[in-house]
Amino acid sequence: NDIRVYARDLVLKEIEKHAADGLGRVDYALASGGAMVVKHSEPYLVGKLSKLFLMSARNVIHNDARKMLKPSFGEPGQCFALKGSSGFVEIRLRKAIIPEAVTLEHVAKSVAFDRSSAPKNCRVSGWLQERNTEWSYDSEKMFLLAEFSYELEKSNAQTFNVLESVGSNVVDTIRLDFTSNHGSPSHTCIYRLRMHGHEPYSLSMMPMQS
Amino acid sequence: NDIRVYARDLVLKEIEKHAADGLGRVDYALASGGAMVVKHSEPYLVGKLSKLFLMSARNVIHNDARKMLKPSFGEPGQCFALKGSSGFVEIRLRKAIIPEAVTLEHVAKSVAFDRSSAPKNCRVSGWLQERNTEWSYDSEKMFLLAEFSYELEKSNAQTFNVLESVGSNVVDTIRLDFTSNHGSPSHTCIYRLRMHGHEPYSLSMMPMQS
Amino acid sequence: NDIRVYARDLVLKEIEKHAADGLGRVDYALASGGAMVVKHSEPYLVGKLSKLFLMSARNVIHNDARKMLKPSFGEPGQCFALKGSSGFVEIRLRKAIIPEAVTLEHVAKSVAFDRSSAPKNCRVSGWLQERNTEWSYDSEKMFLLAEFSYELEKSNAQTFNVLESVGSNVVDTIRLDFTSNHGSPSHTCIYRLRMHGHEPYSLSMMPMQS
Ligand SMILES: [K+]
Ligand SMILES: [K+]
Ligand SMILES: [K+]
Repeated sequence: NDIRVYARDLVLKEIEKHAADGLGRVDYALASGGAMVVKHSEPYLVGKLSKLFLMSARNVIHNDARKMLKPSFGEPGQCFALKGSSGFVEIRLRKAIIPEAVTLEHVAKSVAFDRSSAPKNCRVSGWLQERNTEWSYDSEKMFLLAEFSYELEKSNAQTFNVLESVGSNVVDTIRLDFTSNHGSPSHTCIYRLRMHGHEPYSLSMMPMQS
Repeated sequence: NDIRVYARDLVLKEIEKHAADGLGRVDYALASGGAMVVKHSEPYLVGKLSKLFLMSARNVIHNDARKMLKPSFGEPGQCFALKGSSGFVEIRLRKAIIPEAVTLEHVAKSVAFDRSSAPKNCRVSGWLQERNTEWSYDSEKMFLLAEFSYELEKSNAQTFNVLESVGSNVVDTIRLDFTSNHGSPSHTCIYRLRMHGHEPYSLSMMPMQS
Repeated sequence: NDIRVYARDLVLKEIEKHAADGLGRVDYALASGGAMVVKHSEPYLVGKLSKLFLMSARNVIHNDARKMLKPSFGEPGQCFALKGSSGFVEIRLRKAIIPEAVTLEHVAKSVAFDRSSAPKNCRVSGWLQERNTEWSYDSEKMFLLAEFSYELEKSNAQTFNVLESVGSNVVDTIRLDFTSNHGSPSHTCIYRLRMHGHEPYSLSMMPMQS
């Protein structure tokens, strides 16, 4: 009987966590929460689309960029594909936070067509964007948040704690650099990047930025 | 061994329920089933959007209204935000039904940025819209379906049975009035409202309305 | 204790499978993977929409066709509705594969408004579309992949193995013919069709088709 109660509690708790965006953890890089991709390396495009892109200006954000800031619901293809085996993406968070952990997610092994496009060696850094300067920042205030390797054998959503050296510094913009992937020479797919942390008390008392 | 069978059945049953829209219960207020918001109090808008709205006519339905008649999939922001701590929404159901219960849902605690925008004291009423009068109704035929308080400590989808006084009366339009929320002075977010019940035998024999 | 470990492993495994598109099996008919509907029988339309359709040319693919190649997430209405109780759909797969099984899915019983529109007797065939001939094929190379009946009492996603007679023949296009449904005289809804299999080694060495 004890075991039945245990099993029941376990099942309901795990389904609740699954229903709560898979991890049950606040994500300050969520697009529907106001976060957005503000810069990225060259996207991976096929056929006519690539021409369309070359015609447009620099610093244009690709339509698919938003895909890496929202759930994938176990569906292959719901990712942002960047050209080559290395590249970067910069994300403006919903709010300035004291960062705690970052989660990188790829499509589940069991439904993937090809996992060679998964990123491998990654580095996430962050900084506080000054208010009155448009997307420029003081590089002295940049923090290395985490350095890690995304492993194909582990769970498809992999969470890495932020380095202790970051302390309680505040960031509102992060950058993911991937320097290698799992084999694809043509492109790397980012299914989702999440940023966990908490809002500093002082900042939340200040007037909203937008 | 008995326990293993029990555990297995439990897991599969609970996942099936989760996969069936979370509750495994028919929702006559579902947008993809044909239901729609037909009237609402002033929406909560920020920046330029508010001007756009003021320029348009009365009785316009905001684009986000549809969000409260579809799943949220554990994603913060997938809601209809109304101005202030009180307001209302009127919903035309998919079909005329004998109402049984109403479910009000907010985003899960674990992934929410802020839950002060959750509705608190609520009242749901319903009536049968006459066919040949455009969105006008006889107020004598209006029923109080349920009166309840949405609690932050409970499950994020909270179901309330319809009052016994409603009997087997039939409604095809409902109205949610919220008179308070959980603290936000600026706005109240409705993630989802569902209406459960069953179709009356006699009505289902009558010609379809649309 | 052993039982607790068993229960925990079971729960996590089943939730992982659920999160991986419900089955944890690669689907070569997935729209986000590049598959598409290339032909279908007359769609079921109501009101003004039907006129719009009649004005357009033959061989037009209806906008809703894509719905049957993507997840439904337990939501009624996320289907492709075809006129009458019999009809067909042809799907170009993401890639040429050696077919193993086909899955036909309808909305879950617990949330369905009406299940009389579910397909019943079905036949799935497949062939390899020649490269240089536009959507024409040699009928001698057509294979009957599976013949089955979709049952309302079983799980809502029903998987059927491909007939042994198909051997390791390769197909890149499939056709679903349904000859009956579960009672609706007006229309039949296809929520999702998936095609499982694996890529042949030799073909994957050949240059990509697009
Ligand atoms: K995604
Ligand atoms: K919603
Ligand atoms: K679907």
